[in-house]
Amino acid sequence: MLVDQPGRRLSRRHLLLGGAAAGIGAVGAVGIELATNARPQVVAQPLNGTQTVPFYGVHQAGIDTVPQSNATIIALDLAPTTDAAALRRLMKVLTSDAARLSQGEAALADSEPELAVAPARLTVTFGFGPGLVALAGGTAPTWLRPLPAFGVDRLDPAWGDGDLLLQIAADDALTVAHATRMLLKDSRSFGTVRWVQTGFRRAPGSVKTGTTMRNLFGQVDGTVNFVPGTPDFERLVWGAASNPGWMLGGTGFVLRRIAMGLDKWDKLDRSGREASVGRTLSNGAPLTGTNETDAPDFAAKTAIGFPVIPEFSHLRRARSENPDERILRRGYNYDDAPTGGSVSNSGLLFVSFQADIDAQFVPIQRRIDALDLLNVWITPIGSAVFAIPPGCATGGYIGDTLF
Amino acid sequence: MLVDQPGRRLSRRHLLLGGAAAGIGAVGAVGIELATNARPQVVAQPLNGTQTVPFYGVHQAGIDTVPQSNATIIALDLAPTTDAAALRRLMKVLTSDAARLSQGEAALADSEPELAVAPARLTVTFGFGPGLVALAGGTAPTWLRPLPAFGVDRLDPAWGDGDLLLQIAADDALTVAHATRMLLKDSRSFGTVRWVQTGFRRAPGSVKTGTTMRNLFGQVDGTVNFVPGTPDFERLVWGAASNPGWMLGGTGFVLRRIAMGLDKWDKLDRSGREASVGRTLSNGAPLTGTNETDAPDFAAKTAIGFPVIPEFSHLRRARSENPDERILRRGYNYDDAPTGGSVSNSGLLFVSFQADIDAQFVPIQRRIDALDLLNVWITPIGSAVFAIPPGCATGGYIGDTLF
Ligand code: HEM
Ligand code: HEM
Repeated sequence: MLVDQPGRRLSRRHLLLGGAAAGIGAVGAVGIELATNARPQVVAQPLNGTQTVPFYGVHQAGIDTVPQSNATIIALDLAPTTDAAALRRLMKVLTSDAARLSQGEAALADSEPELAVAPARLTVTFGFGPGLVALAGGTAPTWLRPLPAFGVDRLDPAWGDGDLLLQIAADDALTVAHATRMLLKDSRSFGTVRWVQTGFRRAPGSVKTGTTMRNLFGQVDGTVNFVPGTPDFERLVWGAASNPGWMLGGTGFVLRRIAMGLDKWDKLDRSGREASVGRTLSNGAPLTGTNETDAPDFAAKTAIGFPVIPEFSHLRRARSENPDERILRRGYNYDDAPTGGSVSNSGLLFVSFQADIDAQFVPIQRRIDALDLLNVWITPIGSAVFAIPPGCATGGYIGDTLF
Repeated sequence: MLVDQPGRRLSRRHLLLGGAAAGIGAVGAVGIELATNARPQVVAQPLNGTQTVPFYGVHQAGIDTVPQSNATIIALDLAPTTDAAALRRLMKVLTSDAARLSQGEAALADSEPELAVAPARLTVTFGFGPGLVALAGGTAPTWLRPLPAFGVDRLDPAWGDGDLLLQIAADDALTVAHATRMLLKDSRSFGTVRWVQTGFRRAPGSVKTGTTMRNLFGQVDGTVNFVPGTPDFERLVWGAASNPGWMLGGTGFVLRRIAMGLDKWDKLDRSGREASVGRTLSNGAPLTGTNETDAPDFAAKTAIGFPVIPEFSHLRRARSENPDERILRRGYNYDDAPTGGSVSNSGLLFVSFQADIDAQFVPIQRRIDALDLLNVWITPIGSAVFAIPPGCATGGYIGDTLF
């Protein structure tokens, strides 16, 4: 099985060989032999659909997991009749569903068990809104509330907030659809669907493993990001001593639904686009470098004395002087049916994980709000904050530290 | 490149070996060597994203093409200001876009050329509604009109009809999104979006190549279908002498948006479900057989004298005594955001191709309408008919036989 192992980052080579060896025995060995002989890599890849991500663990899956191609993010409003005991029952059922489906087993009482056979790295990540934490009688992290209002916001409440978050992601849309169906079915008597947002990245195998995703502006998006397993990741994603005890091993979740004005963007020339971010479109290199991962040189000046990476660029604005103001970005493109005469309804489901939303996310968003050329083309239209509880051990359930 | 070749059906072996050999030279040869040595097949698969389907040809692509994982189907209404000359310009531009994008080249004036690099078997299939054919001054096939009303229909006009059809399909959602964007952008001054319907099947590599798709009821769906390249396919998909001359090499397109009532379905036990179709859920075998492709035995009786495959089963009803009443089914699952307190909004974008819709599709739909147990759980909520013109040669454009 090809799995993410929280705690270390797998190289592409590792992934290929490890995947092959674990997945199909003898064939894997052939792959390894060829590879170590330095002949062109011929590796029998196990079917994508059979790959699994462990469900049980210190942390929930779907955060440090290499992003899957498809995600459906759902918020539920709890029914007035759902009390703390009912909530506990709900979380037990949903944990069981998620645990089983993520390993390619049908959910208990699965009405379409045949749709469970291809887990395709399915992860289900649960998050708790302020209402749910209050109902459970727990102490909420201080940042568990709607984000402060930003000048750029044009928020539609239909895309915001909620009591219970489900982030369902896999490398296969049918797998996501089936998991969504099972989880919503089992939630039905406890609450109602508040919103559903669906997004995508490139399909598995479409481009080379490890390629940074592109968003619908065509930009390389996700270059500078947290690397799972590093000490900073531990501290700034899984850490935050100030969070209440039940959150140990958990983190904070922000979703910003950000409309991307493709029509306006398409009127901008290439150099204007590159200036707005501070990176090239061709490979995402900073305007002062040649490769995607080159460090930007903010001091470099043009012949006439302007910064090569403009002050107003997204790269400059999004990067803080304070290294603690960092976040794990894990977003998805969305492209919904256009409405009202327009020809696109596209954007980014911007998702970030950080241990302390007030200390890490908010300062970045404030700086972007105050000045960022990209704001001309992007508009936040939905916003939601959830507390992501830790993972659970076999036999436990998500939320068991809270109840 | 791994391509569909209209005119013959590729075996799985062919696909793997041919793909590898054409895609990456020496590595492909290693794959072949291993395979012919009857050791476990170790085949370096080229990236899915680089695979292309030829655009130019006698027939349009996207019909006899092995179905891709993602499809967006769009109908446009032409603007009142669009005359025959404008229509011709439109079809030239769209042909150019589709031809280039399907080969992994940016469209002319592509504003996000970097999104064009992974064609992922992209096909764009164009269809003409009655209004468009009239505007072009052509003779419409007799069947080019809304389908007759059926008792089961609960049609919402928001999901029906239109002047120009675009069926955009690829093995990658970002590829589909970018192609959709380019085509709609270039159509903007000629018309407006009437509807957009998005669907999916399993991702490439999720399950073994050649596995029949499953729909959201969990059924194996697509077992009995036309095989491209057979004489029947030529006659009943590409044929129909009664179609006007400009349609030579073209075919007829039916889209039925069919809601599938999962809540009701999930209340039905397994044997009831299997009886409703006449096939097993586990592998899609007819109730009188053991393997998916076994021929059903409609004469077989149970101990108490009832047909094993019930008279009211979908299998029985959908199969005609008249072998000319057959269609090429090429549908997609849909799973949209639930509305109004429900927890699913799912179904099938039933798509079929047939040379003569009146002679082939309508009798089947009539029989299903008159009696089919499956009707208890399925409801057609959208319906559209288009004439699919033939493909074009390099330098030509889709529709050039009509204008
Ligand atoms: C549709 C909206 C947005 C788009 C299109 C966008 C696009 C990008 C792009 C192209 C980059 C450069 C490549 C990279 O390192 O990933 C980037 C970097 C970044 N963005 Fe955004 N972004 C958006 C919204 C946001 C928001 C809302 C935040 C947080 C409030 C944010 C935070 C960041 C951060 C922290 C970086 C890395 C900066 C660094 O190099 O240190 N972005 N974004
Ligand atoms: C949501 C609606 C529908 C569902 C869930 C569905 C499902 C199925 C299933 C499971 C099969 C058996 C496996 C196979 O051969 O593919 C089948 C066969 C078939 N269906 Fe449907 N179907 C639907 C609608 C339709 C419609 C609207 C038509 C045409 C009017 C149609 C025509 C056929 C035909 C021609 C066959 C093959 C019958 C044969 O064995 O000769 N189906 N369908």
